[in-house]
Amino acid sequence: MKHWKKIIFVVAVVAGLVAACSGGPTATPEGATGIPQDAAAVAAQRGLTPADITAALKTYTPSGQTDPYIMFASGGQGGQVLVIGVPSMRILRLIGVFSPESWQGYGYGGGGDKVLAEGNVKGKEIKWGDTHHPGLSETKGEYDGQWLFINDKANARVAVIDLRDFETKQIVKNPNAIVDHGGSFVTPDTDYVIEGPQYATPIGWGYAPLSEYKDKYRGVITFWKFDRDKGRIDPKQSFQIELPPYWQDLCDAGKGVSNGWIFCNSFNTEMATGMGVDGKGAPYEAGTTQNDTDYLHIINWKAAEADFKAGKGKDINGISVIPLETAISDKLLYFTPEPKSPHGADVTPGGEYVVVGGKLDPHVTIYSFDKIQKAIAAGPTEKDTFGVPVLKLDDTKEAQVELGLGPLHTVFDDKGYAYTSMFLDSAVARWTLGGPYADKHPEQPWTKVQSLPVQYNIGHIAAAEGDTASPDGQYVVALDKWSIDRFANVGPLMPQNFQLVDISQTGDKMQVLYDMPIGMAEPHYAQIIKADKLKPWQVYPEVGWNPETQSVDPNAVKAGSEKVVRNGKDVEIWMSVIRSHYTPDLVELQKGDHVVWHLTSLERTPDATHGFAIPGYNINLSLEPGESQTIEFDADQDGTFPFYCTEFCSALHLEMTGQMLVKP
Amino acid sequence: MKHWKKIIFVVAVVAGLVAACSGGPTATPEGATGIPQDAAAVAAQRGLTPADITAALKTYTPSGQTDPYIMFASGGQGGQVLVIGVPSMRILRLIGVFSPESWQGYGYGGGGDKVLAEGNVKGKEIKWGDTHHPGLSETKGEYDGQWLFINDKANARVAVIDLRDFETKQIVKNPNAIVDHGGSFVTPDTDYVIEGPQYATPIGWGYAPLSEYKDKYRGVITFWKFDRDKGRIDPKQSFQIELPPYWQDLCDAGKGVSNGWIFCNSFNTEMATGMGVDGKGAPYEAGTTQNDTDYLHIINWKAAEADFKAGKGKDINGISVIPLETAISDKLLYFTPEPKSPHGADVTPGGEYVVVGGKLDPHVTIYSFDKIQKAIAAGPTEKDTFGVPVLKLDDTKEAQVELGLGPLHTVFDDKGYAYTSMFLDSAVARWTLGGPYADKHPEQPWTKVQSLPVQYNIGHIAAAEGDTASPDGQYVVALDKWSIDRFANVGPLMPQNFQLVDISQTGDKMQVLYDMPIGMAEPHYAQIIKADKLKPWQVYPEVGWNPETQSVDPNAVKAGSEKVVRNGKDVEIWMSVIRSHYTPDLVELQKGDHVVWHLTSLERTPDATHGFAIPGYNINLSLEPGESQTIEFDADQDGTFPFYCTEFCSALHLEMTGQMLVKP
Repeated sequence: MKHWKKIIFVVAVVAGLVAACSGGPTATPEGATGIPQDAAAVAAQRGLTPADITAALKTYTPSGQTDPYIMFASGGQGGQVLVIGVPSMRILRLIGVFSPESWQGYGYGGGGDKVLAEGNVKGKEIKWGDTHHPGLSETKGEYDGQWLFINDKANARVAVIDLRDFETKQIVKNPNAIVDHGGSFVTPDTDYVIEGPQYATPIGWGYAPLSEYKDKYRGVITFWKFDRDKGRIDPKQSFQIELPPYWQDLCDAGKGVSNGWIFCNSFNTEMATGMGVDGKGAPYEAGTTQNDTDYLHIINWKAAEADFKAGKGKDINGISVIPLETAISDKLLYFTPEPKSPHGADVTPGGEYVVVGGKLDPHVTIYSFDKIQKAIAAGPTEKDTFGVPVLKLDDTKEAQVELGLGPLHTVFDDKGYAYTSMFLDSAVARWTLGGPYADKHPEQPWTKVQSLPVQYNIGHIAAAEGDTASPDGQYVVALDKWSIDRFANVGPLMPQNFQLVDISQTGDKMQVLYDMPIGMAEPHYAQIIKADKLKPWQVYPEVGWNPETQSVDPNAVKAGSEKVVRNGKDVEIWMSVIRSHYTPDLVELQKGDHVVWHLTSLERTPDATHGFAIPGYNINLSLEPGESQTIEFDADQDGTFPFYCTEFCSALHLEMTGQMLVKP
Repeated sequence: MKHWKKIIFVVAVVAGLVAACSGGPTATPEGATGIPQDAAAVAAQRGLTPADITAALKTYTPSGQTDPYIMFASGGQGGQVLVIGVPSMRILRLIGVFSPESWQGYGYGGGGDKVLAEGNVKGKEIKWGDTHHPGLSETKGEYDGQWLFINDKANARVAVIDLRDFETKQIVKNPNAIVDHGGSFVTPDTDYVIEGPQYATPIGWGYAPLSEYKDKYRGVITFWKFDRDKGRIDPKQSFQIELPPYWQDLCDAGKGVSNGWIFCNSFNTEMATGMGVDGKGAPYEAGTTQNDTDYLHIINWKAAEADFKAGKGKDINGISVIPLETAISDKLLYFTPEPKSPHGADVTPGGEYVVVGGKLDPHVTIYSFDKIQKAIAAGPTEKDTFGVPVLKLDDTKEAQVELGLGPLHTVFDDKGYAYTSMFLDSAVARWTLGGPYADKHPEQPWTKVQSLPVQYNIGHIAAAEGDTASPDGQYVVALDKWSIDRFANVGPLMPQNFQLVDISQTGDKMQVLYDMPIGMAEPHYAQIIKADKLKPWQVYPEVGWNPETQSVDPNAVKAGSEKVVRNGKDVEIWMSVIRSHYTPDLVELQKGDHVVWHLTSLERTPDATHGFAIPGYNINLSLEPGESQTIEFDADQDGTFPFYCTEFCSALHLEMTGQMLVKP
């Protein structure tokens, strides 16, 4: 830095500091103070630029200070959900969903075994998932902090997570699809959890050759009815709609003015079936991208629900499926063209518009719900191959905004801006909404404002309260797929990169604040909720609590009531667990015994979690304060098995052990 | 802040900044600049204190800047290893070890299946582990960045991780123990990986009633021979030593002057066996803490190795076990008392001393290796119940330092300080070493210097290059077990808390810099290595690389050589994988076919990883650039199964799919 620049810089800094310290508009509030003497030296020594310093101060969250936002990110093929504090970008928790997870004792003999088994596919154990789109429960279009839903693309399943204890309570297997994608999105009051399809198969994924693709293969969109009182999806009150064998992709629920409707983009309206056995066809990535436009699916779910309730669905594999022809005749389904190789279908906060990115088109296309309704009322004159009415693009389009290369997903803020992830550009594009949003920002409506480079290959993008009727602004997170050169090398399998972006200022002032490696998951989408909307338990409400039923377990163990009861080869154990002992601490079995073992934590202190592991038996539990669990197994290995507490609970934690002796 | 204080503060800040900007001792180097104007306002708005600001600047690591240290932390009952950047405290990677992990395709049909099966216990699949103590390979007592070893306490297993690709290559099951604890520690040149025991069982964990505890139950310490050329533990060159049925705990290898020796602490020399079936005995935590002292185990492993090579071991379950009586007669094993309820046995960098914490004693006890040798030479006059010679504490003790409540583990720095984790105090105690370390610090030797509060219940503590012959200083990390009130509430199962502590200044100037929640693991121990010692591959060295053999696979697929070969019901597939297609993209099977499927990634671009999932078949692979994998399964489900890429690889990633059709 040249000398005169240094002088100007120092004067500017002093001016800023004096302003900060003297009760001016940037006054230091009580309890906080100014910049410490050694700050510049530390920054210099670590090579931090002024922008880095600001970013550090905008994200660093001191010990005991909590994050104002919580992000729920899918874990992709990790099969889990990550819970992340924003803006500190620290992983607060992992929630086991489709994959067993032994830290939380999920799927290792106790809790989770039944839930995971619900996800079996035709009796086969599936011990992983490809979690894609987390959906927080909503009330009147606002996140209510009660439930989280997430789909497994790889096996077409949807899971329900209870945000009182952050545990997975249910997995439902889609009986008619073997893969999905456009889930889990909720209707504005969480009446339904929507699971949109992806690659078409015959309904029920029975065998049919690809030569019969057009006739036999289909998409199905599922409306899973959510019962809030029971905290479970009710498959009997759920229904599906048959769709053409295009590859439906992302979906979003209408809200506000468009409440009652659903919008899904699609691709492969070419119905390409690949190179085939002889290798002579076009590869999928070429065959599926020949058409200039595919179809945005516009679905009237309230009318579909009425059809379902009127018994117009057909039972297929235990669920009611509204046939495609009924969907057409009853005006449940319309198409409108969307350019090119579409991805993302995102509804604006008030429900007025649907934004679709075209992976191979430099624009986002904005559809007007009002225009869609007018076009429907006018009576569409065109149909697709399957007879679905097609609304003309010119009749439904509100605007197109040229953003650059590879627009995918769009989220919103409180200032009338939209933010679109640009995969090929590796950028976040900020652009302006028009209509009722035009007054909120200083720029012209429907114009690009800034393209912020991100590192690299951004997929989804998430915004604070972004999918609600009233997004917050302040932050978006870029879910970057590649991270090469961003972090220390940890081998050929590199982490993804979540980049926190400050969007608090208008205009072209977006700034990347933080790079967060994700090296145990490949998140697809995330939702960000205000932390104070979440009211999780710190300990279970009563001793003996069964997290599966969310009530006291009939087999809960009280201090003094511990016992072992043998009835022939059936042995039942009631064991209490408290710092730092198991009672009883000796269990004597005979090889071949069938064992039912109830364990109850008597703890009432938050964080006083105990584990319970039986060596050689593939059993590990996590017993949170008050929790009761039951394990059941055959004592098929004889010997001496010291069970012990796997969670460091006290100074005498290592002494929290006992013996399971199995006589040959 | 009072007005005059503000003025002094501003002047001080300006002085500091001017110093920083004017080429003085804290000059700003090229490329970095000073504090931005809005920094104080941002800090004030977020309630950051001057100490917070310094901490933020000492830890924030901007996009593209890499961490100078890498921490390998065990994941506890999560069964994995976490790779963390220091000082940014970001998780760079999770390494699946004892638990399957679908993000990295570990244990879902391809890589990892064989490794995980090596860890079966008497034929039973064990799909989790309780990883405890990671041990980096060493050359001449320094981490060499080549290998990482880690033990599974729950099933007495040890795993080998190759740091070229950060993947688990081997799991060995201890044939004579069903639980372990004091592993994995290496000898100074990684000749052996040491696995110390924990809860005693009969050797081979066969059945014996607790009434026969003293006669039939035993500890065994294992010396696993590591073959660097093969990158595998060689069980045939490994041996064990029989120990009394005390509960041996943590171990550390001597180095420098004490090279050739091993030190393990122990507890439950009372041989307590709990309350028993009738509940009338003392609970373990009382029974095991009656004695004022237990025994530090002092083992001459070089002499034990000579005994093993001389055939003095007894083959038990396929491994050579040196009997306790031979260990005594051949002078392999000595005891010396250690107070009270000991935990941790940590050797100073030069090997001169062993530090033992007593969980229920306010001191750490420091043993002199030189004094131990003199006491051995003088001929011990006392013996324990099993005839093991006991060296008198007064003869072996160099010093005791009173630190406070609950001292557990001790690590070291470059300034002659030791750092002990204080569980009950929730503190890190800094204290001074004497002897050859006395000149390195300004304080008196063997005195406590500072007790730094941590949040809360610290277990282990890790230091930068801390277990080497030349620790670095600068950082220690407190592995706190409880985190209540530190982070946003995420339900009853709370994260652990890693606190990064700045130890760069002498005296009582230690400072907590960062709180890092760990919400997917319960790490026990961690080692921290200089990042530049690691030289991982960014892509596999050649196309067709098999990470299991670390060589090109004979079934690697080249572009143009893809094929499907049917031989009766046996179908073999050679498939290539590259953005954005699988070749072939259609595989036609008959129900009941046995399928062998080879896949090779033709990619050479770093980070261009592909997944490969078969819905409904519990199969998911991660194919890093150049990687070749083989899966094998029976086509036992008929139908249409669209396989697809689970790792977002390109703009046309969704189009990277194909069909596996299984005819009924």
